[in-house]
Amino acid sequence: MQFTLHQENDTFSLLCGATVLLRHSAQAPCCFVGHGQESMQMYRGNFDIEDYVDERSALRELVLEQDAQGARLSFARHAGEAPQLVFEVHARPHGVHLQLAFAAPQWNRLWLRLPAEKHEHVWGCGEQMSYFNLRGRHFPLWTSEPGVGRDKSTHLTWQADVTARSGGDYYHTNYPQPSFISSQRYCLHAETTAYADFDFRHDDFHELQFWAMPESFEFMLADSFIELVGVVSERFGRQPSLPAWLQNGAMLGLKGGEAHARTILARAKEHGLAVSALWCEDWVGLRQTSFGKRLFWDWRWQPERYPDLKAWIPELAADHIRFLGYVNPYLCNDGALYQEALQHGYLATALDGGEYLVDFGEFDCGVVDFTNPAAAHWFEERILRQEMLDFGLSGWMADFGEYLPIDLRLANGVDARLMHNAWPTMWAEVNARAIERAGKTGDATFFMRAGYSGVQRHCPLLWAGDQSVDFSRHDGLQTVICGALSSGLLGNAYHHSDIGGYTSLFGNVRTPELFQRWAEMAAFTSMMRTHEGNRPDENFQFYQDEGVFAHFARMTRLHVALAPVIRSLAEDAVARGLPLQRPLFLHYEHDHNTYAIQDQYLFGPDLLVAPVHAAGATDWSAYLPAGDAWLHLWSGVRHEGGQRVTVAAPLGQPPVFVRAGCAQQDFLLGLAA
Amino acid sequence: MQFTLHQENDTFSLLCGATVLLRHSAQAPCCFVGHGQESMQMYRGNFDIEDYVDERSALRELVLEQDAQGARLSFARHAGEAPQLVFEVHARPHGVHLQLAFAAPQWNRLWLRLPAEKHEHVWGCGEQMSYFNLRGRHFPLWTSEPGVGRDKSTHLTWQADVTARSGGDYYHTNYPQPSFISSQRYCLHAETTAYADFDFRHDDFHELQFWAMPESFEFMLADSFIELVGVVSERFGRQPSLPAWLQNGAMLGLKGGEAHARTILARAKEHGLAVSALWCEDWVGLRQTSFGKRLFWDWRWQPERYPDLKAWIPELAADHIRFLGYVNPYLCNDGALYQEALQHGYLATALDGGEYLVDFGEFDCGVVDFTNPAAAHWFEERILRQEMLDFGLSGWMADFGEYLPIDLRLANGVDARLMHNAWPTMWAEVNARAIERAGKTGDATFFMRAGYSGVQRHCPLLWAGDQSVDFSRHDGLQTVICGALSSGLLGNAYHHSDIGGYTSLFGNVRTPELFQRWAEMAAFTSMMRTHEGNRPDENFQFYQDEGVFAHFARMTRLHVALAPVIRSLAEDAVARGLPLQRPLFLHYEHDHNTYAIQDQYLFGPDLLVAPVHAAGATDWSAYLPAGDAWLHLWSGVRHEGGQRVTVAAPLGQPPVFVRAGCAQQDFLLGLAA
Repeated sequence: MQFTLHQENDTFSLLCGATVLLRHSAQAPCCFVGHGQESMQMYRGNFDIEDYVDERSALRELVLEQDAQGARLSFARHAGEAPQLVFEVHARPHGVHLQLAFAAPQWNRLWLRLPAEKHEHVWGCGEQMSYFNLRGRHFPLWTSEPGVGRDKSTHLTWQADVTARSGGDYYHTNYPQPSFISSQRYCLHAETTAYADFDFRHDDFHELQFWAMPESFEFMLADSFIELVGVVSERFGRQPSLPAWLQNGAMLGLKGGEAHARTILARAKEHGLAVSALWCEDWVGLRQTSFGKRLFWDWRWQPERYPDLKAWIPELAADHIRFLGYVNPYLCNDGALYQEALQHGYLATALDGGEYLVDFGEFDCGVVDFTNPAAAHWFEERILRQEMLDFGLSGWMADFGEYLPIDLRLANGVDARLMHNAWPTMWAEVNARAIERAGKTGDATFFMRAGYSGVQRHCPLLWAGDQSVDFSRHDGLQTVICGALSSGLLGNAYHHSDIGGYTSLFGNVRTPELFQRWAEMAAFTSMMRTHEGNRPDENFQFYQDEGVFAHFARMTRLHVALAPVIRSLAEDAVARGLPLQRPLFLHYEHDHNTYAIQDQYLFGPDLLVAPVHAAGATDWSAYLPAGDAWLHLWSGVRHEGGQRVTVAAPLGQPPVFVRAGCAQQDFLLGLAA
Repeated sequence: MQFTLHQENDTFSLLCGATVLLRHSAQAPCCFVGHGQESMQMYRGNFDIEDYVDERSALRELVLEQDAQGARLSFARHAGEAPQLVFEVHARPHGVHLQLAFAAPQWNRLWLRLPAEKHEHVWGCGEQMSYFNLRGRHFPLWTSEPGVGRDKSTHLTWQADVTARSGGDYYHTNYPQPSFISSQRYCLHAETTAYADFDFRHDDFHELQFWAMPESFEFMLADSFIELVGVVSERFGRQPSLPAWLQNGAMLGLKGGEAHARTILARAKEHGLAVSALWCEDWVGLRQTSFGKRLFWDWRWQPERYPDLKAWIPELAADHIRFLGYVNPYLCNDGALYQEALQHGYLATALDGGEYLVDFGEFDCGVVDFTNPAAAHWFEERILRQEMLDFGLSGWMADFGEYLPIDLRLANGVDARLMHNAWPTMWAEVNARAIERAGKTGDATFFMRAGYSGVQRHCPLLWAGDQSVDFSRHDGLQTVICGALSSGLLGNAYHHSDIGGYTSLFGNVRTPELFQRWAEMAAFTSMMRTHEGNRPDENFQFYQDEGVFAHFARMTRLHVALAPVIRSLAEDAVARGLPLQRPLFLHYEHDHNTYAIQDQYLFGPDLLVAPVHAAGATDWSAYLPAGDAWLHLWSGVRHEGGQRVTVAAPLGQPPVFVRAGCAQQDFLLGLAA
C-alpha cells in the first residue's frame, strides 16, 4: 500500500490514502521517551502493578530522510541532539509499518501518540470483558486473572479484594493484545510483549505506552470493516475450522467421577439432550485441600475416578460422543511428570538457578519452560500426545497461560517480564503442535482463556474464562458477549463460555434462571459447554430440575438445528477470517448507532442475537440495525431496522431476529418450531 | 547560619554544618521539571485527584554562581540550554533558604529530591492521622475530609466509598502541610499552597512534588529535636496560651436544645463531674433534611432551641461555666446573613461572575470570600463579634476550612486550586482577628480541624476531626494520638478530640467502653470535650449509664487535678513552642526505639501516657524510653526504661507512668488517689 510522508510548515504527517496515521510537530510531538521503575507483585495470577516514571521527554525534533532505501524518521528532544529514536517506514500490502531501527539505550518507556477524532470509536485490545468501545478509558495490557466481580462498587469485588487481592477491574483480562481497530478503518498493532497501556481518554490523540521499545508498529487499512477484519485475521494467523462433531450437541462438563458422568449422560439421553462430548476435568484425579477438591496436576489418567475410562472412550465414540480432559502448563511437585521434567532440566528455575515452585494453595508446581525447545517438545509428545491424544482424548481445556511469574529464569535468557505476555501464545502453540503432529488438526481441539498477539494462529477456540455465576455488569453473563466481539475483531473467530458461569464465592450462587438464560445465548455461539463450577455442590446444575433439564435439552437441539449455519460461518471464518459472533457494525457500518453496542451480536449476516442478561426479565429490548427489516424468531413479527424494539422474552425464547429476505429466511424461522 | 556550597568532581552539595541538604550531579540530579494536567473532582469535601504528566525532565546541568550578592543555582536540562530554574541561596538565622528566582513558564510541575538515608525517620506533613513516621509511604498534601474508615480493607470504608465516595485513605487529612522534620535534625518547609505530594519511599532520596513552583524551600536546623521544634514553632507563629478556664473540667458537647443542656448539666453536678463549659452547636437552630437534623447555617442565635440563652449565659458564668457555639465559613442561602453578604458582594462567584452555591445536602450555601479584605472584616465584625462574642459566647468550633471548591472565582484573582490549601489558615486568621479585636485573645477561644502552613499563628487549639466511633486502626481512637504528635512537631502545641469519636455510619456505634477509654486519654490532653456525635440517638452517651457517668466524672477531676501540669506546659508552649503531647523521642533522642512510636506520648517531660486503644483490654503494654526509670501511676511500681512493660489497665486506670526522680514525682503519684 502506498504511503505519503507529508511536511507542511512545522507539521509532519504520515498518511495512507486520506487516513492520517501519524502527525507530529514540535508543539504537538507524537513520541515521548522516558525511564521508569516498575513494581509488580503477583498473587495467584492477580497483579499489583505500579510505575514510577522519573523522566518523560517529548521528542520534538523530527528529521525525515527519504532515499532509494526508503524513509526514516529520526526523533530527538531538540535540534542538535543525536537521535533518540529512529523508525524505518515500510509499505506493506495492506498498510504501512514503522520498524524500530534505533532507540537510545537509557530509555525503557515509550509513549506514542496517534491522531484521534472526538467521535472516533476504538475496539479490540484482545478479549475485553467490560467495554467493547474502548474510548474514554485506558487499558493496561498484561495477561492476568480477570478478577472476581471486577467492579469496585460491589460487595463481591470488595470481598475478593480483601481476602485474596482478586477483585480485579474493568481492564483485567486473560487475553490482552496491543492491537486495536479504529472506526477510521485502520488497525494498529504494536509488536511487543512488554507491559503496555493504551489510553483512549483524550479527545485528539490516543496515547500508547510501552515498558520496552516495541519492534514495530503495524498499521493495517481497508475500505470496510469486514475487509479490515480479514486483513487482521491474516496477520495473526487464520484459525482451522471448527470440528464438525461439536455441532452434535452440548459438551457436558462433569467432574464427579465416572459413575456421575455415566448417570448424567444416561439421564441426558432420556431427556432428549443432544450431547457432543463429555468434558471431565477430574480425569487426572483429585487432591483434597482446605479450600476443597482440586485437580491433581500430573497430567495423566488416574484410574481411581474413572476406572473404566480406557474402555469407555471407544464406547462413547461409537455413540458419537467424544471425551475431553484438562491440562495446564504446570506440574505439581508430588507428581511423576514433575520429576521427569526436573531430571531433564525442562523446568524454569529461580534466578540463581535453583528450583522454582509456584504456590497454588497447599500444593506447589514447577513451570515447564517452553522457551527451551526440548522442554516444549517433551510436553507435546510425552504429555499431550502420549498421555492424552493416544489415550483417546478428543481435546481438553488448556487452562492458565496468564500466570508466568516474573521472577524466574528461562532458558532463552529473556527477562520473564518480557515473556509473561508471550506465554499464552507459546502455550497455545505447544497444544496446537501436539495435535498437528498427531494429524488431528480440525478434529481434536482445545480451548483456552489466555491469549496474546498470535494466539489466533494456534488456539482453535477461546473460552471466556471464569465468570461469576450471576448477571452482574462486569463479571456476569453479558461480559461474555463483549469478550466474543472484541476478540472476534482481532481474528479469533470461535468463542464460547461456561454455561451458567463458573465462580461462586461469598455466597454468590447460580440460579436456574441464570443457567437457562446462559444456555439460550450459548445455543447461538461456536459451541455449547456446561461447567459445574468451582463449587458444584452449592450451585444449581441443570440435572437437578426437570424443567431446566427440558429447557436445556431444547436449546441443545436448537444448536444442532443451527449446524448448517455454524458450518457455513466456520467456512467463512477460514476463508475470510470473520468471527461467528459479529458486532452489528461489521455488517452495518453506516449505522453509527451500532458502534458501541456490546450486548447484542450478529450470528453471521442473517441472525441477530440479543441475549437476556438480567434476572426477572419477561420482555427484552434490542436495537435493530438500519437498512434491513428483521423478523422476530418466535413470533415472526417484522420490525423495521434503525430502531430499538421490545419483544416478549420468556424463558425458552431468547430474543433472536432473522434478517428479512435473506436466503435462509425460511430455514431460520423454522428453528422456532 | 553558615552554609557551604561544595563542588567535587561532578557532584555539588549544599551543607549546613555536616548536614547535606542538597546533592546534585548530572547522573543523580536533584531537580526535575515537567508539565501535567490534573483532574480534580470534589464531592462534599472528598477529592478524586489524578495527574497526567506529559513531560518530566531531569535538570542535569547545574551552574553555580557565587559573588558578593550571594549564591545562585541555575539548572538546565543540558549544557547550552537556557536555565529552566534558578534559586538564590540565602543564609538564615536557623538555616538556609532556596528562593526561587526564575522558572521557565512552560513547566507547572516540580520534583525536588533531597538526599535521604536508609534508616532516616521523617515526621510531620501537618496533622497525619495514620502514620507518624512517614518513611516508606508518599503523602499527597491537599486539605480535605479525612474519610470514613480510611482503610480500603474494611467494610465500613467500602460502604462509605460506594455510597458517598467518602472512605478516604491513610493520607487524607483536614490539615496537611508541606513541611517535615527529618531525624537528621532538620526541618524542610516548602512555601507554597499548591497541591503537593511528598514521597518518602526511596532509600536514598526524598522526592517532593509540586503542582506549581514553590516560592522557596526553607531548611531549618538545630542541634536537638527540642530546639528544632522551637525554631519551627517560631517560623510558623507561636500560639497564645491556653485559656485557664479550660482546666476547670470538661467541655460538654450537647446539641439537644436548652432543656436538654440544663438537665445534663444538673445531673453532671450531682455526679461530681467537673465542667468548664457547655458547647452547644445547635445554638443557631436546626434544619430537618432527609439525612436527619442539620444545623441552620446562618450564624446567629435562634431562640427556638435556646429561648433563655441570653439570660442563661451570665448565670453559667457566675457558676464558672462558659458557653460556646459553632460557626463555619459558609452561609446558607435561605438565611439572613447570606443576603447581607450577597448584597455587599462578599461571596465568591462562579467563574462567569454568577452566583456560586455549594450543595451540602438539601441546602445550598455561599462561600464568604476571605480574599476580599472587606468580606473578611464583615465576617469578623458582623458575625463573630456582633452575633457571637458580644452575645456572650466564649468561643466556638470553627468548623470546615478544607472545602474550598476549585471552580469558583475569588476577589484576589488567584486560581482557586492555589487558594484551596490556603483557606484553612485564612479561616483561622478571620477567627483570631475577631477575638483579638475584641481584646479576648487567650480567653475566648476556638478550635479547628482544618489547617495548613501558618495556621499555628492563628488557631489556638486543634481538634482531631471526625473519628469513627471505634477502635479502628485508621479512623478510631489511636489516630488522635498520631494527629497530636505530627501536628505538635510543627508548632501546634494544643490538641484534643471528640471524646468517644463522632462518625457513626452503617451500624457502627459507640460503646460505653470506647467512651471511657477515650475519656481516659482526653484527661491527659489540652482539653476534655465530649460530642454527642452525628447520630446522638443511636450512640452511647455518658449520661445514659451511672457507671460511665461516675468514671467520666472521675476523669474530669483527674484533668482538673492536672491543671498545674497543664499550666506549666502551656507556658512552655508559649516560651519554647513545645507541644503538650510530645513524641517520646523529643526527650529521648538517643533512644532510637522511640522514633516510630505513635500510640504513646509524653505529656510534658514527666508523664508518659500509653492510651488503651483496643476493646476488651485488661492489661496493656508500653515502651518506656531508656535513660530514666518510670513509676506506674496506679501501682507505684518502678520499671527501668529501655524496655516494653505490661501493666494492669482496667477501666479507670489508664496506663500512665511518672518519670522517677522528677521534681513533681510526689504530686503526680498523688493523682492516683
